[in-house]
Amino acid sequence: MQLTSFTDYALRTLIYLASLPDDELTNITEVTDLFGVSRNHMVKVINRLGQLDYIHTVRGKNGGIRLMKPAKNITVGGVVRDLEPLELVNCSAEFCHITPACRLKETLAKAKMAFLNELDRCTIDELLNGNSELLILLARP
Amino acid sequence: MQLTSFTDYALRTLIYLASLPDDELTNITEVTDLFGVSRNHMVKVINRLGQLDYIHTVRGKNGGIRLMKPAKNITVGGVVRDLEPLELVNCSAEFCHITPACRLKETLAKAKMAFLNELDRCTIDELLNGNSELLILLARP
Repeated sequence: MQLTSFTDYALRTLIYLASLPDDELTNITEVTDLFGVSRNHMVKVINRLGQLDYIHTVRGKNGGIRLMKPAKNITVGGVVRDLEPLELVNCSAEFCHITPACRLKETLAKAKMAFLNELDRCTIDELLNGNSELLILLARP
Repeated sequence: MQLTSFTDYALRTLIYLASLPDDELTNITEVTDLFGVSRNHMVKVINRLGQLDYIHTVRGKNGGIRLMKPAKNITVGGVVRDLEPLELVNCSAEFCHITPACRLKETLAKAKMAFLNELDRCTIDELLNGNSELLILLARP
């Protein structure tokens, strides 16, 4: 039971964008260098976050990316719901013949809801707010 | 966010063993055929369930496997805690340099606890109890 690296990097990217002063832009190279991840992977993450209206891209020579909405309006649960494949086990009838009567999927669904509900209670802003140690780690050189 | 197929098959195996009448044995071939999974994989699952005292192996010509404890004493949460890798993201300092100050891991830890606590409330027995449709699907030919 792991989150995909896609969701993981998306959350870290949003945390970084939220740490920047208002209207300050960053770019893929900076985010890639900061987290030491593959540029290709990060391009996909940032494109997807753009499609989902989490981040806004400013085009042109002095362009870059920034958050599209305030970090206090972005919950960890929302990001996980938007990006993470949430089928805990493969319950397709071709894969498991007890599926029609199996109660395990209901139990797992309840547990998944409890998981997501907990994540819904935390915003990206709360991860940063008053966290001076994190702001230092995220600061530009 | 998926459970490993190892945990998935372990849960299904325990459900099947719990469906058998008292003292009736089954074996790896039967479980493998029932769920249509690789025998090699199922051997590993059953060995691990044996090591963890979920199932008991009766050796000899008429041997086989059965539950070691009553199904009402086996919770889904217990099995998941015993078998599933539960590190949701890789927070090692070599992997992510904001780890020392990152609050995301606490948020994820709380969500994971909510997930497991929900699974702790469900026993293998409850998945079967009064579930005649499932008992038919699990019945021997």
